[in-house]
Amino acid sequence: MIPSKLRRLVPVLEWGRTYNKTMLMDDGIAAVIVTIMLIPQSLAYALLAGLPPEAGLYASIAPIVLYAIFGTSRVLAVGPVAVVSLMTAAALGQVVQSGTADYISAALTLALISGGILLVMGLFKLGFLANFLSHPVIAGFITASGILIAASQLKHVLGVDAHGHTLWEVLLSLASNMGAVNFYTVAVGSGALLALFWMRTGLKPALFRLGFGATLAGNITKAGPVFAVFMTTLLAYLFKLDDKGVQIVGHVPQSLPPLVMPNLNFGLIEALFMPALLISVVGFVESVSVAQTLAAKRRQRIDPDQELIGLGAANIGAAFTGGYPVTGGFARSVVNFDAGARTPAAGAYTAMGLAFAALFLTPLIFYLPKATLAATIIVAVLSLVDFSILKKTWNYSKKDFSAVAATILVTLFFGVELGISVGVITSIVLFFFKTSRPHVAEVGLVSGTEHFRNINRHKVLTVESLVSIRIDESLYFANARVLEDTIYNRVAKDQPIKHVVLMCSAVNALDLSALESLEAINLRLKDMGVLLHLSEVKGPVMDRLQRTDFVEHLTGGVFLSQYQAYEALAPEIIEGEKARRTLLAS
Amino acid sequence: MIPSKLRRLVPVLEWGRTYNKTMLMDDGIAAVIVTIMLIPQSLAYALLAGLPPEAGLYASIAPIVLYAIFGTSRVLAVGPVAVVSLMTAAALGQVVQSGTADYISAALTLALISGGILLVMGLFKLGFLANFLSHPVIAGFITASGILIAASQLKHVLGVDAHGHTLWEVLLSLASNMGAVNFYTVAVGSGALLALFWMRTGLKPALFRLGFGATLAGNITKAGPVFAVFMTTLLAYLFKLDDKGVQIVGHVPQSLPPLVMPNLNFGLIEALFMPALLISVVGFVESVSVAQTLAAKRRQRIDPDQELIGLGAANIGAAFTGGYPVTGGFARSVVNFDAGARTPAAGAYTAMGLAFAALFLTPLIFYLPKATLAATIIVAVLSLVDFSILKKTWNYSKKDFSAVAATILVTLFFGVELGISVGVITSIVLFFFKTSRPHVAEVGLVSGTEHFRNINRHKVLTVESLVSIRIDESLYFANARVLEDTIYNRVAKDQPIKHVVLMCSAVNALDLSALESLEAINLRLKDMGVLLHLSEVKGPVMDRLQRTDFVEHLTGGVFLSQYQAYEALAPEIIEGEKARRTLLAS
Repeated sequence: MIPSKLRRLVPVLEWGRTYNKTMLMDDGIAAVIVTIMLIPQSLAYALLAGLPPEAGLYASIAPIVLYAIFGTSRVLAVGPVAVVSLMTAAALGQVVQSGTADYISAALTLALISGGILLVMGLFKLGFLANFLSHPVIAGFITASGILIAASQLKHVLGVDAHGHTLWEVLLSLASNMGAVNFYTVAVGSGALLALFWMRTGLKPALFRLGFGATLAGNITKAGPVFAVFMTTLLAYLFKLDDKGVQIVGHVPQSLPPLVMPNLNFGLIEALFMPALLISVVGFVESVSVAQTLAAKRRQRIDPDQELIGLGAANIGAAFTGGYPVTGGFARSVVNFDAGARTPAAGAYTAMGLAFAALFLTPLIFYLPKATLAATIIVAVLSLVDFSILKKTWNYSKKDFSAVAATILVTLFFGVELGISVGVITSIVLFFFKTSRPHVAEVGLVSGTEHFRNINRHKVLTVESLVSIRIDESLYFANARVLEDTIYNRVAKDQPIKHVVLMCSAVNALDLSALESLEAINLRLKDMGVLLHLSEVKGPVMDRLQRTDFVEHLTGGVFLSQYQAYEALAPEIIEGEKARRTLLAS
Repeated sequence: MIPSKLRRLVPVLEWGRTYNKTMLMDDGIAAVIVTIMLIPQSLAYALLAGLPPEAGLYASIAPIVLYAIFGTSRVLAVGPVAVVSLMTAAALGQVVQSGTADYISAALTLALISGGILLVMGLFKLGFLANFLSHPVIAGFITASGILIAASQLKHVLGVDAHGHTLWEVLLSLASNMGAVNFYTVAVGSGALLALFWMRTGLKPALFRLGFGATLAGNITKAGPVFAVFMTTLLAYLFKLDDKGVQIVGHVPQSLPPLVMPNLNFGLIEALFMPALLISVVGFVESVSVAQTLAAKRRQRIDPDQELIGLGAANIGAAFTGGYPVTGGFARSVVNFDAGARTPAAGAYTAMGLAFAALFLTPLIFYLPKATLAATIIVAVLSLVDFSILKKTWNYSKKDFSAVAATILVTLFFGVELGISVGVITSIVLFFFKTSRPHVAEVGLVSGTEHFRNINRHKVLTVESLVSIRIDESLYFANARVLEDTIYNRVAKDQPIKHVVLMCSAVNALDLSALESLEAINLRLKDMGVLLHLSEVKGPVMDRLQRTDFVEHLTGGVFLSQYQAYEALAPEIIEGEKARRTLLAS
């Protein structure tokens, strides 16, 4: 019997016990489909990360197996993804020269640090930290990264040299090299682009019209990139396009993922730590979103903290087997899901397929034009670009809008790392700003009910001697002083006020700074001959107040409900209401 | 006629119009008292900042006048203060060699940057940013700074050399130099210390017993430090203590504050920017707290944004007249207030007094022992040390406690700059942590009322087919996912559930991430055959929801009150209650 704690930490021990033949079949079919799709994708993302193509294959093998053992999603497919590949290129580009052995080895270090961070976060159950990336910020970041990635791949489609980690740099660099455009490359690249775009949109309907079944049509569509790879490789081989200036993939070693040691130089680790942290967080958020979406469709659940451990293990695996940072990818996971994968074993079979490809199929891609891979990436990432989030947030909330706009602009023009950081910081600062200036409503009794609402929005009953103020925010250091100001200003305005009732239905917490402000308000109102009361104080807040002598010193009372406060302090209103009710009843 | 906008920006134009002879008398008397107190204090704080004594005097002249023109507090006394002097020493110590001309000129640069920051914050109305320093963090920081300052002054009392910006460094440095203790210095220093402590605690009662009036006794007490300065200077002169190794102030130029230009070297400005920011914020918070406390006593109000402008002008003034960063000081402002100052003109008269001292009295302090000044500082700052905040926060909230403890420990052992930064960051992170895991209560009807409370804390009426969930937090990106989990878990538990009512009385805001979560919840519950309703949605939140199509897609309704939701969805409960009520009435 395996202890339940161990089973939770190593989920394979849980689902592995009930694995059967039907599951094997389903998983096997899904694996074949995913493998075919992953081969060109892995090569392409390696290219995007500035690494040799085999790094993409290697990064898809050990990580998939490790995630299958430690992860909780049944269908997540782990490996190189577009955004993380771009972030890898940005991180490494700052530290080492692209195209060198140092670059490849630094990629391993980056994966190792990233894996370590994820693992530690998982062990300390810090999965909730991912919540600090708001949906709009993620959407904006993905959109901006998509544009940036597409722009960075244009050079391969045009057959020119270009560099840069921001949209500006990339476009400038492209423009200055436009003289060197290679027309054979442009022909191959734009042909692949057009074909891929058509396969994404026009192929499935066309197959339907030809009488293909939905599943088959879907699977043929997914194999589209493989077809583009095959055709352009064949063309390059037949017409010796490499002699005419078309860049091809060339020699890729025929090998299983090598067992290698990441560079553990301290200076390198220090330089890569912050980028690795950002990559970890972005990768985790992307992966968890995908996993949660897919799990919800089958009424399954995933455990974010255990996901961190699974992704951590996957990245550490990538670091020791010639890969680079990986995470759960959207496209491949959806394909895996649609193809009917039932358990993480499907991932393991995919790994076997890719290992087979790495061992035997690499000579076949010698003539594969890089322009084709670039076209694959461009088509994939442009489907992520979606500016509707700007309109959506503009309509809904200018605060959300500013966070998205800042994320998009900074990502495009200052790079991915700054972009995502600015997004997170902007949303946190705006949230703080909001809570530090709380909405405050003066409330009165909605006639015929025991309910109290804003006197400016609803027709309510009030009485001159009593002011009921509802503060719509937890009270804490950032807004404690605002509360004081609000109350003093309100009380100073009206002479006949005898009671102030603070309706605390929206006060979810009250820290020491706020308590001190309340004490000050209590004393100050006392000086003015006004009593301070509280109503609808929540359990957790009341528990805390009772640890102090605040309630003893309070000049007024603490009422369970605002209505009871009115019963005690404004009986004339309540009597009037009762009379009216009796009248209505009779 | 002066435009009202200008009058608001330059408050002197407001109060200056009604200035009369009584005010002049009151202000004049206060100025004399404050001047006498400020002379030794200014010299001492300059010493603490690592600057020549005259810098303290200069920093008290132009800044006072500028604050009198632009500030809004009637009684705030601006000049060198303990904590800011310590922070100045810490900031400059990292960049330039102490005791050099560069050091003095860098102090001007620091004051200029700090003044610029304050001014810009004021013009952009960023005064609310000071609210991010919570009361407990400030209390902890002041206490730790007090200890650090007292420790740093021990060297002058012992007559040894010692350095360091953390408690550890200072104590180690002192310990290693203990062999060089100068006993004449110790005699002067400890004599001054004892005398000052006694004057602070024992002198006033003694004067009362001798039949002095309260005001006179108070004023004599305040002049205590001047007496200590006078006596030890006399002793040093008579016994030529400087030949016996007692450090004296020595030659101080007889001059009005010089008109000087701060060093505007870009590298220096860059290096001092962050420290200047911290100094500005800490100085502003200290100053505003003092100003607000004193204004409240006379039912006056201050304007935090205008205070920023006043303090900014004061610091810029200090930068061009040989001073260093200044702010509104607690001790001197209280003295000014107690002495009866009526308008900022009292500050201007104080400035005249200090200018007179700078011009004519500096030869008198040639023999003033530095040990006396150090004793003045130690006595002043030890009165700020108050560990009760640790006990108070421990009892009230472990979160507040951790923020204070972190602030105190980091300030003592890693220095003031890191200390205050850690305090602010800790309290913000803890607040976020709290709001990202909101308290959630399932509620039911309190019998005999229309009020709904937590089913675990109160005896309430509920019905099986309806779950009412009150989320005690604004819904936003950091907790949107928690909401989903909570609802799914609750609904999955019970089969007969037909309705879920989200009681939104504590939901003060709802951002786009949360809206998306609500949409997801709505769809998911629909799949399960459960309707989602909202109740008690606040005006501002409802306004926002109405900009979207959420309410149209909502499977259930939006109820004004939770009671109305019960009337519609659980009529059996309401009928029962009405029957009971009728029974009671009859």
